[in-house]
Parts: sequence; structure tokens; C-alpha cells
Amino acid sequence: MTLLYLLDLIGTAAFAASGAWAGIRRDMDLLGVLVLGLVTATGGGTLRDILLGDLPPFSLQDETYLYLSLVVSLLIFFFHRRLDFLNHPLLYFDAVGLGTFVVIGTGKALDFQIGFVGAIMMGVMTATAGGVLRDVLSNQVPLILRKEVYASACIAGAALLTALHHLNTPSPVAALAAALTVIAIRLAAIHFNWSLPRAGQ
Amino acid sequence: MTLLYLLDLIGTAAFAASGAWAGIRRDMDLLGVLVLGLVTATGGGTLRDILLGDLPPFSLQDETYLYLSLVVSLLIFFFHRRLDFLNHPLLYFDAVGLGTFVVIGTGKALDFQIGFVGAIMMGVMTATAGGVLRDVLSNQVPLILRKEVYASACIAGAALLTALHHLNTPSPVAALAAALTVIAIRLAAIHFNWSLPRAGQ
Amino acid sequence: MTLLYLLDLIGTAAFAASGAWAGIRRDMDLLGVLVLGLVTATGGGTLRDILLGDLPPFSLQDETYLYLSLVVSLLIFFFHRRLDFLNHPLLYFDAVGLGTFVVIGTGKALDFQIGFVGAIMMGVMTATAGGVLRDVLSNQVPLILRKEVYASACIAGAALLTALHHLNTPSPVAALAAALTVIAIRLAAIHFNWSLPRAGQ
Repeated sequence: MTLLYLLDLIGTAAFAASGAWAGIRRDMDLLGVLVLGLVTATGGGTLRDILLGDLPPFSLQDETYLYLSLVVSLLIFFFHRRLDFLNHPLLYFDAVGLGTFVVIGTGKALDFQIGFVGAIMMGVMTATAGGVLRDVLSNQVPLILRKEVYASACIAGAALLTALHHLNTPSPVAALAAALTVIAIRLAAIHFNWSLPRAGQ
Repeated sequence: MTLLYLLDLIGTAAFAASGAWAGIRRDMDLLGVLVLGLVTATGGGTLRDILLGDLPPFSLQDETYLYLSLVVSLLIFFFHRRLDFLNHPLLYFDAVGLGTFVVIGTGKALDFQIGFVGAIMMGVMTATAGGVLRDVLSNQVPLILRKEVYASACIAGAALLTALHHLNTPSPVAALAAALTVIAIRLAAIHFNWSLPRAGQ
Repeated sequence: MTLLYLLDLIGTAAFAASGAWAGIRRDMDLLGVLVLGLVTATGGGTLRDILLGDLPPFSLQDETYLYLSLVVSLLIFFFHRRLDFLNHPLLYFDAVGLGTFVVIGTGKALDFQIGFVGAIMMGVMTATAGGVLRDVLSNQVPLILRKEVYASACIAGAALLTALHHLNTPSPVAALAAALTVIAIRLAAIHFNWSLPRAGQ
């Protein structure tokens, strides 16, 4: 499916950029920036493939993802001052990546006969585990555990896709609906500054 | 073996509660609390299954573990003030979980023909890696690396089970002896405030 | 190949020592020191085997690595004051381990038909992921992401081995050239205090 592959690459590039920028902010050297870019972009899908037992993972099967992540991270490293204007648009590309990764991850889990909750988890993990690894390597509490409606947008999309799948909705329709759900919730969350409740101590 | 499954579920619930509570103490939002509960309860067994190559892992094969972890974490999130009285009894349920997870993890490694030291490690990892992941995600040095006789109790039980296995002791007897060893050492360590030696610098 | 196995054990011992020492510096107890030694020594190769789907990993197939790591960590724990004089020579053994691990990891990835960039990554990961795990468990930003020409030496060696492999150079020649490249760059970096550029904010 060519459109899905294109969206997947857009998401990969956006995630690599977010990882590389995190490395620069933490004053890492060139290598650290490359590693953070790579891990942020491919970590989620790689963890999904490990859990599904589909090894070697996608990132070692189709090297496009590695090349793309490395090139984006290199560009950010050398031109990050001149690329500052990208910080705002990146939020939109990141949302596109989020929706795409959720659809790919949930869909693959369903193909592997994973159950309802498990399939949702795999979709959310595909989209968010790269960012979690980025934050753990940067020695910070993962952002998605603390703020913003980020993983929640993924849960909504993954749950919708899983439900539509079990209702035998045609795949492309279900995938489109799920991806748009993630993207719409995520953009609304940015626009309206939504956040989840805390327990309060 | 129905008793073992029941003990396994008790341990899962206790571990999920400890993870959810850690998330609340770190001021995480609802999603963070759910993730910590889930990871603490199922992370150890999942890592064991990855290393044994038994994929997808138990937590994606039998969704009971996911549902139970999520429900417990939700309850802790919404009623944590009223559930404060559970903090002390939780230590006992946690000890039961520890003994059960050690027996399940070591036994599975032995079934997979893993060697003496490896089988002990797999048992200890099954019982403790969830807590390590909880602490890494909370940006803290894992508790078990710093204090208390916690993993040590697991090592004793796992070593006993491995030895009894190689001596051809009937499985249920060996499992019971190993689980009781872990639980007894753990409860004695809590009661007498035991700790391991430090190197001293 | 007996020489390679010997070098592999030397590297394993050096890495275990570096992990155990990190645990002592962080005031961990006996168990924490053993875990850090074990993880630093075997974590990289274990992660490589997970990604290649070669499970259980080498460390559970040949228990020599586990025994060696544990014995070295125990020695460091009990005699670390008297072993202080080892701190400088350890840098050299560590460099030998680095070169060996790169050659083993890259070579195994090439045997598994992994592509150019992927094979280099697997070689670098085999040599460095143990140290990254050590630092994550110690709640620090991984050293290799921040300073020193460490992973860079591995990249050079892994790239050379991959290139020679695709040029059909006989394996022992290619392995020797790659290992010496890693070791030479690493020792020069220590001697001349080399570091990689930072992005500068």
C-alpha cells in the first residue's frame, strides 16, 4: 500500500527529528544525536516486532528506515539553528506519524491473532515506545507518562481499528478512520491544551 | 495447575498495585499510572519469554493478565486515598507473587533446557524485572539494586528449585519448597529489616 | 576459532569489571554489583541475539559467560580497594573487548543476511549496549552518548568489516583488520583525549 508507506516514512522522519533535537538539547555529541534519532524513529516498531516474534525486525529488513533516520538526524545536527523554523510544523508531521504508526502496529498485531487489549497495546507501543526510549536514554521520566494527550490519542485510534476489524469493516476504511481519529485528537489536544486527570495526593 | 494460576493472578494484582502507586507518587497522569501498573505486573515474564524465544509472550497469549493489571491500576488511581490501608497487607501479597513468579520463571527455563545459572537468572528476572522497568521509567535507580533482601530471596528459591529439579524431585514438591523459601526469606527480611553488605568506598 | 573465543572472554571479564565498579561507585549492595557486572558484560550480545531472533541468546547457551561475569564481579566487590591498580590497565582490556565484540557482532549479523547499515549497527550494539544498560540502571545518561570516541571506534571497525565482507576478503583477515582498527582508534582516543563535535546551542 504505497500511501501507507509514504506516511510511514513521513512519520519516521518526524520522529527521528524529535529524537535528534532531544539529543542536541541534552548537549550530546554527534553519535548521541544519531542514536537518539534512530531509536526514537525505529524503537517502537522494533519492540513490537520483538514481542510478535517477527525477527529480525522491520528496521533490519528494509534499510530505508535506517538511512532516512540517519540522514534526518545528521541534517538536524549540522543545521539545527537554521532549521528552528521547523519546530512548529514538526508537531503536525509528528501527528501524522503517530496516526500511521498506530494503524500499522495495531494491524500487524491483529494479523498475528493477538487479542483485543493486546492489539491496542501493540498499536500504542509502536507509536510511543520510541519516544519512551528516547527519554529513558536522556535520563528523564518519559514525557508521555507525565503530560499531554499523546498516548491517549493512540489508544482511541487503536481501539477503533480493533473494533472495526472485529466488525469485518474493509481494512482500508478502518485504517483511514483510525489514523484520522489519532491525528484529529492529537491536533485538538495541541490546539486546546488538553491534559489527562492526575490522581492528586 | 489451578492453585499456581490463582497464586499467579494474586501476584500479578499485587505487582500492578505497586506499579500504579509508584506512578501516583511520581505525579503521573492516568495513562502513566496504567502503564506503570501494566509494566510492573507483566514486564518480568515478558522479558523471560523474549529471552526464551517463546513469542508472543504469555501476556499477549492470555489476556487475563492485561485485564487484571489494568483494572487494579484503575482502582488504585481512582481510590488510592481510600485504599491506603492496603499498603501494609500489599507487602504480603507481593511476597506471594514473588515466590510464585520465581517458581514459574525458573520452571519454564528448565523446561527450555537452560543451564544451572541461566535458569536461576530467569527465575529471578521473572520476579524482579517488572519492578526494575517500573523504576527505570520513573527515572530512579532500581530499588532492588540498592536495598532490601528482595532479589536475594528470589535467588535462594530459584537455586533450590533448580537443584531439586536436577535431583529429580517431583515438580509439585520442588515448586512448593521453592515458593515457600522465597516467601519465608522475604517476610523475615521485612520483619527483621535485613540488608545485604555494601562494598564501602 | 580459539583465539577469538579467548579474546571474547577477556572482553567479557573487562566489561564485567567496569560494570561492577560502576555499581560500587553508586553505593549498590552485593546484588546490585553482580547485576551491573552481568548486564554490562552480556547485555550487548544478548540484545543482538534478540534482534536477530537467535534465541535463547548466546549468554544462556554457553554458561561460561555468566560464570566469568559473576566471578569477576564478586572479586571486584570484595577486593575493589586492593584492585585499584587495575583501573588503568582495564582501559586496555576494555579496548580489546570492544574490538572483539564488534567483530563478533558484525560478523553474526552478516551471517544472518542483514544489510550494510544494519550490520554495522549490530556490531556497534554488541560492543556498546551493555554499557548503555549499565548507565540506564545507574540512572545516568549513557556515557557513550555524551563523550569520548568510544562508539565511533566501533563504527569504523564495523564498517570496515562489512565492506571487506562484501569485497569477499577472507574472514580471518577481515576480522583481524577490523578488530585492530577499533583497538587502535580507541587507544589513540584515550591517549590524545579525542572527542566528537557537539552541536552547540
